[in-house]
Amino acid sequence: MKEKTVAESRTVMTEMIMPNDANPLGNLMGGYLMRWMDIAGGICASRHCEAHVVTVSVDHVSFKRPIKVGHVITITASVTRVFNTSLEVFIQVESGNPMRNERHLSNHAYFTFVALDDVTQRPLQIPRVVPETEDEQRLYESAIRRRELRLVLAGRLEVDDAHEIKSLFRDAKA
Amino acid sequence: MKEKTVAESRTVMTEMIMPNDANPLGNLMGGYLMRWMDIAGGICASRHCEAHVVTVSVDHVSFKRPIKVGHVITITASVTRVFNTSLEVFIQVESGNPMRNERHLSNHAYFTFVALDDVTQRPLQIPRVVPETEDEQRLYESAIRRRELRLVLAGRLEVDDAHEIKSLFRDAKA
Amino acid sequence: MKEKTVAESRTVMTEMIMPNDANPLGNLMGGYLMRWMDIAGGICASRHCEAHVVTVSVDHVSFKRPIKVGHVITITASVTRVFNTSLEVFIQVESGNPMRNERHLSNHAYFTFVALDDVTQRPLQIPRVVPETEDEQRLYESAIRRRELRLVLAGRLEVDDAHEIKSLFRDAKA
Amino acid sequence: MKEKTVAESRTVMTEMIMPNDANPLGNLMGGYLMRWMDIAGGICASRHCEAHVVTVSVDHVSFKRPIKVGHVITITASVTRVFNTSLEVFIQVESGNPMRNERHLSNHAYFTFVALDDVTQRPLQIPRVVPETEDEQRLYESAIRRRELRLVLAGRLEVDDAHEIKSLFRDAKA
Amino acid sequence: MKEKTVAESRTVMTEMIMPNDANPLGNLMGGYLMRWMDIAGGICASRHCEAHVVTVSVDHVSFKRPIKVGHVITITASVTRVFNTSLEVFIQVESGNPMRNERHLSNHAYFTFVALDDVTQRPLQIPRVVPETEDEQRLYESAIRRRELRLVLAGRLEVDDAHEIKSLFRDAKA
Amino acid sequence: MKEKTVAESRTVMTEMIMPNDANPLGNLMGGYLMRWMDIAGGICASRHCEAHVVTVSVDHVSFKRPIKVGHVITITASVTRVFNTSLEVFIQVESGNPMRNERHLSNHAYFTFVALDDVTQRPLQIPRVVPETEDEQRLYESAIRRRELRLVLAGRLEVDDAHEIKSLFRDAKA
Repeated sequence: MKEKTVAESRTVMTEMIMPNDANPLGNLMGGYLMRWMDIAGGICASRHCEAHVVTVSVDHVSFKRPIKVGHVITITASVTRVFNTSLEVFIQVESGNPMRNERHLSNHAYFTFVALDDVTQRPLQIPRVVPETEDEQRLYESAIRRRELRLVLAGRLEVDDAHEIKSLFRDAKA
Repeated sequence: MKEKTVAESRTVMTEMIMPNDANPLGNLMGGYLMRWMDIAGGICASRHCEAHVVTVSVDHVSFKRPIKVGHVITITASVTRVFNTSLEVFIQVESGNPMRNERHLSNHAYFTFVALDDVTQRPLQIPRVVPETEDEQRLYESAIRRRELRLVLAGRLEVDDAHEIKSLFRDAKA
Repeated sequence: MKEKTVAESRTVMTEMIMPNDANPLGNLMGGYLMRWMDIAGGICASRHCEAHVVTVSVDHVSFKRPIKVGHVITITASVTRVFNTSLEVFIQVESGNPMRNERHLSNHAYFTFVALDDVTQRPLQIPRVVPETEDEQRLYESAIRRRELRLVLAGRLEVDDAHEIKSLFRDAKA
Repeated sequence: MKEKTVAESRTVMTEMIMPNDANPLGNLMGGYLMRWMDIAGGICASRHCEAHVVTVSVDHVSFKRPIKVGHVITITASVTRVFNTSLEVFIQVESGNPMRNERHLSNHAYFTFVALDDVTQRPLQIPRVVPETEDEQRLYESAIRRRELRLVLAGRLEVDDAHEIKSLFRDAKA
Repeated sequence: MKEKTVAESRTVMTEMIMPNDANPLGNLMGGYLMRWMDIAGGICASRHCEAHVVTVSVDHVSFKRPIKVGHVITITASVTRVFNTSLEVFIQVESGNPMRNERHLSNHAYFTFVALDDVTQRPLQIPRVVPETEDEQRLYESAIRRRELRLVLAGRLEVDDAHEIKSLFRDAKA
Repeated sequence: MKEKTVAESRTVMTEMIMPNDANPLGNLMGGYLMRWMDIAGGICASRHCEAHVVTVSVDHVSFKRPIKVGHVITITASVTRVFNTSLEVFIQVESGNPMRNERHLSNHAYFTFVALDDVTQRPLQIPRVVPETEDEQRLYESAIRRRELRLVLAGRLEVDDAHEIKSLFRDAKA
């Protein structure tokens, strides 16, 4: 099974915020943004796996900067690391007023997907990903810690065995 | 400011899964479910606060049971606890085939909202919530630990000061 | 075929009114409300029948209280009575400004559904419904009169044979 | 205030049934059809009144002929008669498979609208309608009986004063 | 294969412009109008061909008159001429404020469709169209020139062989 | 007024084709693609102009390669050239099955936009664009010929004055 670079499946999605995407204050609703993040992440994962994929989890997401009706969001989805039958996708959201050609960092999240066989609907083996840039390398390495936290939160790993967790806690401040 | 019970703002939303909500395997896409969870949570938070609200964060969500086109989901949103200017909402998803009158537990998540003043768009004080049932009491108490984890993950609390975190890790297995 | 209570299939749907659901005056359009009523009624009927259902008729609906963008509607659908291969569902709509935690009675309607066999698409026998509360009992009893009126309006029953009609006219003032 | 003919405001709407408009059996859901009927009726009423309108009631609607995904519906809305501050619109639905250039009569309904002043949101006087064809004349005359039935059903007219009702019951069989 | 008149497949579509169809200036976005033109044209072509059709090209479209939220558009699609396995459809758009019962000419375009066999998905022979009115006759005759221009623009016809092109250039000023 | 490079406003949009975007043969409808092209083009133009923009015309578009439900399209919009108060945007569409990580060239089109002042809604001066790559240079130069053809087709330029048109006809075969 052929390895792939991160660039080969990177997916960019641009959307303009319309009135129906916003709450009465004129801010994009968080759920609409998560839907777009999930679609971009799913396309990215599907391109990497060359298979149908389903979302298995979304890590903690926070919404800091309000995004207004008429503003434009750019979502970039990149595979960070593959774990046998699942893969983690890093999703970054930039937003801004196109009338000032702004692009501010607005959100990010880590989604996990599995690839499924069309017929049996069972998980498939996934080709490994090759990080190339420094940023890709950093995300590749930190993926282990995020995975440990997911397993602990899901009650599938004892805290005592989560060797990377403490460093996650120390490093998560960015 | 008048306290409210959990029941006063509880919000139930029922939706049928349509073809456009599903991936090519016929499973509801995770992002669509998160959008509905956010809408139900936002209505619940708005009813409790009697104000406009915005989503500030979503805790880790996992998707275990595939939900099929034609199935029905029932989303129940309940305020668990109020923290000055933010409140946590517990969102539970049941799903099943209406042709077998099924309702299986399918997902849950914790969303955090803030209430904003219409004019200044600044955070408002939120009335306290009064848990009544045993389940509501349990969610009220565990809210402290989930909040500590959120602050640690956001880099706004040192792990050493997160007194409740270890017990969260021990108890999260349900 | 097992009887069911009304509560077993009761369906609650909550929606927030968005700009695209409203006319230029900012009022929810009647047709959008009827679409949601039909979806809630169809899910309720499907749960009771444990089969696919189709709408066969909607009784006279009136729209009195305007529902505004940003307001929330709560639709409750309950089976009132079963007639061999059709069933009547009572649909009640509450609406209000979530920022005042309002829930005013806004509309109601009676929808009639039939259950169809998946393969033959022919009507199926439907399990009887057991009313439990006083309200359910009252709706169960008055269903006969509403059915007579439907048959008269459809030209399938002579007025002289519609024994319950006159009392309907006397009682319909609620 | 200038009278208008029926033809001046007649409104024709054509739509193709898409997968998301249909239930799992592939039939257009009744509620979606009512939404389109309401939009066509509202445009027609707005053209006649030259004002914003809102739906005040929908008479009994029945759904006989299933309409399939891929089929086309043609909705024709025509003002039948004006009553001071409300007007009745007759809405006829034809449907069929475009691949056989079919157009079968499928449904009809009577919607009632009021015209509202932009500023005060109070009902406006509506210009009278002039029926021209034989069909238009027949709908104009029978409008009185339908209106009596609406008033009786709404509890705003005693059955004994509803002079036209019995003839409605006799004539409604078409 | 039976000829058909233009009237037999003429398709009229009426839509009200909603907030989500418009840009931040409150004008209908050009792309939304093209989508509706394509749907109306496709239904018209499908009715003429009695087959599934796909869009193969759209001639130059210009957007002169802004169409506002709350305005109504009426799209009329008519077959102009058939060329073996393709047909040209003329699509005319009127728009205006329903509150003034306006209908201004707003846009027009020529779409070309092919009819496909359900099974093989190969082009089908298309029945000829019979123009009846003077307008239909004029559109029928000028179709040859528009087709030549399409072939030239697609690089499938040499300018020197495009005998009708120069007259198109002379006549296109309407 | 500051010049900008093509890269500064380039806009990439990725979408997955859903069942409601397709005709009964499972092919993306042309009109849906044009809507997305227009949105991407509008965002690109808005970023270049730093102003609200409206579509004024779309050149001839052809649809060759069918795009299937479940496939992914990538739309890239780039400013080619600015003409005082209007600008031309080149829109390229790639499509393919994500399960084979395909990206085939599928369509392209030239859209023309004007920038409007928020208050007066009158056209604004637009900053010039600086082509950098060889492709951008080629599109910049050929923009003159495409503009001449638009003016001729709109009846606003005599064929005899359209000096570049003949070469367009000779070169358009790519």
